[in-house]
Amino acid sequence: MIAIGGFSPLKGFLERADYETVVEDMRLSSGLPWSIPVTLSVDEEIADSLKEGNWIRLNDPEGNFIGVLELTQKYHYNKTHEARNVYGTEESKHPGVKVVYEQGAVNLAGPVWLLQRDDHPLFPKYQIDPAVSRQSFKDRGWKTIVGFQTRNPIHRAHEYIQKCALEVVDGLFLHPLVGATKSDDIPADVRMRCYEIMMEKYFPQDRVILAINPSAMRYAGPREAIFHALVRKNYGCTHFIVGRDHAGVGDYYGTYDAQYIFDEFKPEELGIVPMKFEHAFYCTRTQQMATTKTSPSLKEERIHLSGTKVREMLRKGELPPPQFSRPEVAAELIKAMQN
Amino acid sequence: MIAIGGFSPLKGFLERADYETVVEDMRLSSGLPWSIPVTLSVDEEIADSLKEGNWIRLNDPEGNFIGVLELTQKYHYNKTHEARNVYGTEESKHPGVKVVYEQGAVNLAGPVWLLQRDDHPLFPKYQIDPAVSRQSFKDRGWKTIVGFQTRNPIHRAHEYIQKCALEVVDGLFLHPLVGATKSDDIPADVRMRCYEIMMEKYFPQDRVILAINPSAMRYAGPREAIFHALVRKNYGCTHFIVGRDHAGVGDYYGTYDAQYIFDEFKPEELGIVPMKFEHAFYCTRTQQMATTKTSPSLKEERIHLSGTKVREMLRKGELPPPQFSRPEVAAELIKAMQN
Repeated sequence: MIAIGGFSPLKGFLERADYETVVEDMRLSSGLPWSIPVTLSVDEEIADSLKEGNWIRLNDPEGNFIGVLELTQKYHYNKTHEARNVYGTEESKHPGVKVVYEQGAVNLAGPVWLLQRDDHPLFPKYQIDPAVSRQSFKDRGWKTIVGFQTRNPIHRAHEYIQKCALEVVDGLFLHPLVGATKSDDIPADVRMRCYEIMMEKYFPQDRVILAINPSAMRYAGPREAIFHALVRKNYGCTHFIVGRDHAGVGDYYGTYDAQYIFDEFKPEELGIVPMKFEHAFYCTRTQQMATTKTSPSLKEERIHLSGTKVREMLRKGELPPPQFSRPEVAAELIKAMQN
Repeated sequence: MIAIGGFSPLKGFLERADYETVVEDMRLSSGLPWSIPVTLSVDEEIADSLKEGNWIRLNDPEGNFIGVLELTQKYHYNKTHEARNVYGTEESKHPGVKVVYEQGAVNLAGPVWLLQRDDHPLFPKYQIDPAVSRQSFKDRGWKTIVGFQTRNPIHRAHEYIQKCALEVVDGLFLHPLVGATKSDDIPADVRMRCYEIMMEKYFPQDRVILAINPSAMRYAGPREAIFHALVRKNYGCTHFIVGRDHAGVGDYYGTYDAQYIFDEFKPEELGIVPMKFEHAFYCTRTQQMATTKTSPSLKEERIHLSGTKVREMLRKGELPPPQFSRPEVAAELIKAMQN
């Protein structure tokens, strides 16, 4: 993500000065907005064996040589301070905090370079780097493009919000995250198949591009919403959808905190416009999808199922109502759940 | 409209310099965007009887004293030139051009003042002046407000576009035009009753304000779209919906000309953001409202009725399909047509 420009203006793992201002103020030391530390943490022992000024070989998890780090700094950092500031909690059961607590004690910093890459093992067709997506938007004559982040299977509420946003821009960039997620999230390949089904039948292909975001989830809620938006700006998006509890987990963040946080930056600093949506559902009174903002309906006129309820239905092989999920998508999820 | 600030920055009927730059360049002589001449035209004989520098009494059509004009200028103008530039045609069968051809040969110019007004004879409840709507938006905490102009009864396509727009702003300002329209348009009182029905059952009242725009229609298509947007900015709107063939009539304008014209101005010059929507309809494939931009459907999967067809059905007392019009609205239109 760093080397392909997905994390621009970063050119490498954060040096101490940037790390500190990011954790403290959501800004790089230059003042540019940046809300999530991007660090390479290793154990003391490894750190001791490396010299500042050295070139370090970077491997993928299988041990293949994929990149080079020019080590400019190594430094200790305060894990609970990072947890508290970035995730708003010091609890180790928070999946993002857990990763921080489990990683090494020393951050290695410096610019990175990527070697010639193999295709993505699972989604080669959807591996579209920022330079390519930007060119693609240009080729299609799109001036305004809205990005959509997701780590969940698509249901009608997502589709509604995506299409609403698309109505007022030129193109939609569906950008599901397929990097590491917590173990109880639906696997990326299942989610991508659901999106393929939607692209075939329910989306106009000349207005929508499906691509993968290879990053890991942090579950940092508001701060990650800013991060997700900046990443999509790098992919060429001019707008970014922020729904309820964006990048949230458990009860750590207020339902709309990830929308409010955009007010802490000047629009021109971020360079991408957040499109904020409330809770969406099917409204039986108006017989259409709506949100709490556009529907005059009473609670009992709203078709909404909890995640728990839906998972239960799918596990039993039951289709949720078509107002909640497209039947073809639900069928795909049932198949995956029963395997 | 001038005196209540609806046509700000105008303070009166256009003087010659402003009139000429408006007709020629869609700008006042100061350079500010203004696309439609706002003039008071009288016959030569009347003009001759009035002296520049005089105060002129202004009457409403019933002869009641309603305002004062400080006559600063009187000047002849070129009607065919105005017709060609503002309406894009010199044909007298164009309803806007017809009005120009039928009005007096001399424009009276100068600032105007309004006397204490009576309530609007038909819609006192919905007569909300710009200062009041702006205060009302503020009181509700709305920072972004989208305005909707219409001279037609509301059907599902309008509702869809209005709600789409509302999803991404704080509030919706429904602002039907109730001034003079051409004789075959549906009368304002019928249209307002349709909107009242919608407000009662289909719109969330805490997010939508219904008010009248007392102006006359010009049917000037693209130029009138700019004008309509500027007027809504004066009412406090930050966004303005521009659909297909906005303010059009017959075949005088291209379907999306009223959207393209916004590109001729810098966004900061206009100070209000156009939200452009394509042709909306019910899509049987996705079982929801959509536009050509968000629907992958084939033509035969779209429920759309021509205006002629709908009028024919209503005259016969037949309800159009609920995907085209809310049944309560259609019933109101049938009642009006059969009277």
